[in-house]
Amino acid sequence: MLTKIRIGILGGSGYGGSELLRLLLFHPNAEIVYVTANEHAGKSVSAVHKNLLGFTDLEFSKTREDLSELPDVDVAFFAMPHGAAMSLVGTLPIGTKAIDLSGDFRIDDAEVFAKAYGRDQTAAELQKKFTYGIPELFRAEVAKAQFVANPGCFATATILALAPLSANRLSTGRIIVDAKTGSSGSGAKAAANTHHPQRSNSFYAYKPFTHQHLPEIEQCLSRVGSVDSSLVFMTHSMPVSRGIFASCYAEARNEMTTADVADVFRDFYADSRFVRIVETSPDINWVKMTNFCDIAVHSDGRTIAVFSAIDNLVKGASGQAIQNMNLMFGLDEMTGLLFPGTNP
Amino acid sequence: MLTKIRIGILGGSGYGGSELLRLLLFHPNAEIVYVTANEHAGKSVSAVHKNLLGFTDLEFSKTREDLSELPDVDVAFFAMPHGAAMSLVGTLPIGTKAIDLSGDFRIDDAEVFAKAYGRDQTAAELQKKFTYGIPELFRAEVAKAQFVANPGCFATATILALAPLSANRLSTGRIIVDAKTGSSGSGAKAAANTHHPQRSNSFYAYKPFTHQHLPEIEQCLSRVGSVDSSLVFMTHSMPVSRGIFASCYAEARNEMTTADVADVFRDFYADSRFVRIVETSPDINWVKMTNFCDIAVHSDGRTIAVFSAIDNLVKGASGQAIQNMNLMFGLDEMTGLLFPGTNP
Amino acid sequence: MLTKIRIGILGGSGYGGSELLRLLLFHPNAEIVYVTANEHAGKSVSAVHKNLLGFTDLEFSKTREDLSELPDVDVAFFAMPHGAAMSLVGTLPIGTKAIDLSGDFRIDDAEVFAKAYGRDQTAAELQKKFTYGIPELFRAEVAKAQFVANPGCFATATILALAPLSANRLSTGRIIVDAKTGSSGSGAKAAANTHHPQRSNSFYAYKPFTHQHLPEIEQCLSRVGSVDSSLVFMTHSMPVSRGIFASCYAEARNEMTTADVADVFRDFYADSRFVRIVETSPDINWVKMTNFCDIAVHSDGRTIAVFSAIDNLVKGASGQAIQNMNLMFGLDEMTGLLFPGTNP
Amino acid sequence: MLTKIRIGILGGSGYGGSELLRLLLFHPNAEIVYVTANEHAGKSVSAVHKNLLGFTDLEFSKTREDLSELPDVDVAFFAMPHGAAMSLVGTLPIGTKAIDLSGDFRIDDAEVFAKAYGRDQTAAELQKKFTYGIPELFRAEVAKAQFVANPGCFATATILALAPLSANRLSTGRIIVDAKTGSSGSGAKAAANTHHPQRSNSFYAYKPFTHQHLPEIEQCLSRVGSVDSSLVFMTHSMPVSRGIFASCYAEARNEMTTADVADVFRDFYADSRFVRIVETSPDINWVKMTNFCDIAVHSDGRTIAVFSAIDNLVKGASGQAIQNMNLMFGLDEMTGLLFPGTNP
Repeated sequence: MLTKIRIGILGGSGYGGSELLRLLLFHPNAEIVYVTANEHAGKSVSAVHKNLLGFTDLEFSKTREDLSELPDVDVAFFAMPHGAAMSLVGTLPIGTKAIDLSGDFRIDDAEVFAKAYGRDQTAAELQKKFTYGIPELFRAEVAKAQFVANPGCFATATILALAPLSANRLSTGRIIVDAKTGSSGSGAKAAANTHHPQRSNSFYAYKPFTHQHLPEIEQCLSRVGSVDSSLVFMTHSMPVSRGIFASCYAEARNEMTTADVADVFRDFYADSRFVRIVETSPDINWVKMTNFCDIAVHSDGRTIAVFSAIDNLVKGASGQAIQNMNLMFGLDEMTGLLFPGTNP
Repeated sequence: MLTKIRIGILGGSGYGGSELLRLLLFHPNAEIVYVTANEHAGKSVSAVHKNLLGFTDLEFSKTREDLSELPDVDVAFFAMPHGAAMSLVGTLPIGTKAIDLSGDFRIDDAEVFAKAYGRDQTAAELQKKFTYGIPELFRAEVAKAQFVANPGCFATATILALAPLSANRLSTGRIIVDAKTGSSGSGAKAAANTHHPQRSNSFYAYKPFTHQHLPEIEQCLSRVGSVDSSLVFMTHSMPVSRGIFASCYAEARNEMTTADVADVFRDFYADSRFVRIVETSPDINWVKMTNFCDIAVHSDGRTIAVFSAIDNLVKGASGQAIQNMNLMFGLDEMTGLLFPGTNP
Repeated sequence: MLTKIRIGILGGSGYGGSELLRLLLFHPNAEIVYVTANEHAGKSVSAVHKNLLGFTDLEFSKTREDLSELPDVDVAFFAMPHGAAMSLVGTLPIGTKAIDLSGDFRIDDAEVFAKAYGRDQTAAELQKKFTYGIPELFRAEVAKAQFVANPGCFATATILALAPLSANRLSTGRIIVDAKTGSSGSGAKAAANTHHPQRSNSFYAYKPFTHQHLPEIEQCLSRVGSVDSSLVFMTHSMPVSRGIFASCYAEARNEMTTADVADVFRDFYADSRFVRIVETSPDINWVKMTNFCDIAVHSDGRTIAVFSAIDNLVKGASGQAIQNMNLMFGLDEMTGLLFPGTNP
Repeated sequence: MLTKIRIGILGGSGYGGSELLRLLLFHPNAEIVYVTANEHAGKSVSAVHKNLLGFTDLEFSKTREDLSELPDVDVAFFAMPHGAAMSLVGTLPIGTKAIDLSGDFRIDDAEVFAKAYGRDQTAAELQKKFTYGIPELFRAEVAKAQFVANPGCFATATILALAPLSANRLSTGRIIVDAKTGSSGSGAKAAANTHHPQRSNSFYAYKPFTHQHLPEIEQCLSRVGSVDSSLVFMTHSMPVSRGIFASCYAEARNEMTTADVADVFRDFYADSRFVRIVETSPDINWVKMTNFCDIAVHSDGRTIAVFSAIDNLVKGASGQAIQNMNLMFGLDEMTGLLFPGTNP
């Protein structure tokens, strides 16, 4: 083994940061140089993320306003709240790669961004240098990228479910995406909607017609193929800690059987080991703690149903970020990510 | 109060029977005369349903093949596996009313029934005497009925969500119903799909395009209004014990705002206190253990989204059965059913 | 029934207040005159406690510093954070009864109180007028009381498990109480320890040897009988929303069989319908949403094990408060509280 | 890397087998040669354990009555129901090592065994060749063993919590162990006590005073040190899929502070990286999916409380079995087992 990739993590206290730490500490080609978290600056990482007790002596440092004051790294991961990376990425030393897990750089159109996130795009020029990092679709671009915008969790599950349809122009009319997330999608900070006594018995819809992941899904699918379909994207909360399940309903342009659709999907993902085409239905249970996206397809002839399931924090965030990093540094995209979930 | 309604419960060991017992023991106009459960015959009810300890001295009796041998009752509730009521209802003494919680008598067309349930309709003549018991839609018919087929849990949530659209011919094209159920929907018997170590972290789809509740939904909605829409009905399993949540997506025949749709729904259910029109989204948490169906509606102009939530065992089964009984005996439909759920 | 008991609820936004509202709205002898909640003042009760939608038009009012400015009531329930009732109860109009659900008035010794709650007892004279309200033990005192200190949730489960041993001097040496609570015991405000992504997979101990309910347990048991035993009281968090389970281990003064101990318990609680002596073990599932305390006892001759289970918000808080109110107003203690839980 | 350890797994359909497969597939020195499961014979492993989809082409074979007919292996893991290994281990080719995850060989005294397991010890001579495999206590013996009896899950958590007290003779009188397990401890087969609708809201005690793990705990602790203490061992069910939490209460022979006790434990486990001494309390959340046993200690001077938490399927079963295998083959005991859990 030659030199390791030197890594900085900006925002290490949330679940995105927590999972980056967990995965990168065991990545054979990675070395975490620093990890920041303002509210925990000076504390040991394993005092905050107690699962890591015994695995690291890292301490959290403060996030500076100018990243050039931090130690030199090959790549910086940004796992901060929306709006933070926008003003920080530009202060990186020239040549440092960056992978942003927030929504700051995912959307090309500044107006669309402003509407989706309720804030201005203050780094529009920088944004143009970002590649949208779904490795299964844009491997070559990611491999050449200096900056990668890591997709949203809902967006990942939805895009992987729909890309084969878009690429092959198999659907027409509106596509309905009924998506569900576990509670860790709301982040590591306690909030009313993740208060255990109520969340543990809850299932509800939220942000109807207005979820901020919709524009990145539409933007990405329109790159994959010409799209006759517009999207209805509806998000729901599940009473489980991890997992996203997307149920997608498209109208077949031409009549197709389930086997026809499955063939298209198997073909499309033939080189993508992290996508597994399964029977009947994926289950968030089988992908939890993994970088897999399990997909099942069905057709009654006229309506094509695609179900996809991911772990929102791994394939939906930190795992995919590392998959992108692997490509950016010429490694096999699966390096450090090829592990199964557990049965119960 | 004059005389009480004398009640027999056929099949009292499952969750349907359990909830009938719980609710009828406190119904001011009801008296449970007998309750059967073959595997528990001779045992006290509260030894099986331990929540009822201290509330009843009833014992389970054996289910006979000829119900005329059982004590005389005014109404018999059938809470047995599909296929059982079919051969039993006909043995009731003449004039005894019956409410069947199984699927045996819900579907008018014997061929459709056979396909949905994988068994023959062996009581086709009897089936014609059954009224489909959604009180909110068919109050008058239920009031006159001798026999009521109590709707399925998924069917109840879906029909109440879509009936105002059907009745007013507001939608066109396919309607997508993405429905989710808690684990008690699978019944009181332990099974692989309700094994706690896995179910507690699971979310998956099942019976794609083929769930047996679809035909009763279509049959019911076509009675409510002329229907240009066909239905895609997709069922999922949630990791929670109680609750059904249905997300319904319809294409508006003419452009409508959310407020327009809400007006239609408020109007439609003006006399139905068990349907509550709520903001943003219903939540299974707010309807658990109750007979309410909470509904929220949204429109982006073109697509109308309707979310409905019920408790699968109350409004989706035993509560609705009692609501039907109330109407059949000239009582206020809310008698014994007007209680709220709990906060956490 | 003639006039109803006029009721004020001070602090109606938390789970204690929520459950008081839910239960008192259906209490045949109660009329809620006002309910306060500073942060929700002006909002309708059912906008906050959505389970009550359709059941009440009450609005939250502001909590004044002087309760005499509020409408006249027969009894005021205090469901506020520790420390609040202490300065408010004294401002009630003369003759108004009060039931305090906080810890403010439970402990007779001001020094013990200060140590347990980390605050001074600023209403020591007033405290002397309070009766500790475990109806099963102090029915007569409660019936005569103007002011009742409602026991803590852990204290209720523990005291009911141990009182028969204390009263009959059956144990010697230290008693170990290993107690577990659901997440609603932490209140309605979101906090780190009730954050769903972690709490849903957690079980841990907290406040070892120092939980504030210990002194009220010791004080109460010493009133019930002479005590040779000191208590080790250890609290744990369970990943469930409702319920307290207490496992109590005492050394038998003289050898006793399980049957011996069960006889003592059945005798002791012969007139207390809310205590049910069960086989093998109680289960929080069977008491959830109820005012029951289920208890099972075992002995290997030398060690007596007593298991008790309650719903922390009902028998452990609001239900017991209403049970106390019933006694204070000469009603049957079970009025409005005699309902079973549910099976699943 | 030299040759790999050739491994056979007898009983691969349960959770023990599932976890052996998951861990051994990634063990750098292991090669699974065969895995049996009668009810799944001929099926691919990943069709049953869907988390392993894409990780193995292994198929289940039938369990023979004579293991010499199966391919030659270096070590056979028995993950079968109690009673099965007893008749199978003796049929292994001479020299093959064996690790039994059932209770068949854990107890030296055949009478004690018969009482605990309700079956006769039919392989008493063979049993004498078994070493009880808690590596933290018996590393040297395990390293020399041909046959290892892998401890029970409850036993592991309890023994690791109490061994430092026994070894140093720090306690006197009875020790109370209040132990709690998640639902996966009941195995992979659906059963009434793991039926999701009820288990998800349950907490209850079971097998009071009679759990079959008690004799192996007593036998093991008496080897570790001279024991003045007898044990009360009480098991409970938690509504979570994985995890064991043991709360142990001992009377200090001489007064000790929390710091005193912590020093003893840190010392005792100085060379055992899988035991982590933590502050306040362990949490099953922090050890889930790992081979760690987290322990916290407290003392009020007189009573010593020790809390321990493990994952019942890893440190409580398959992980520990592999830890034993590592020692038996001269590897670092941590090989293939040194990974952290996850945060949410």
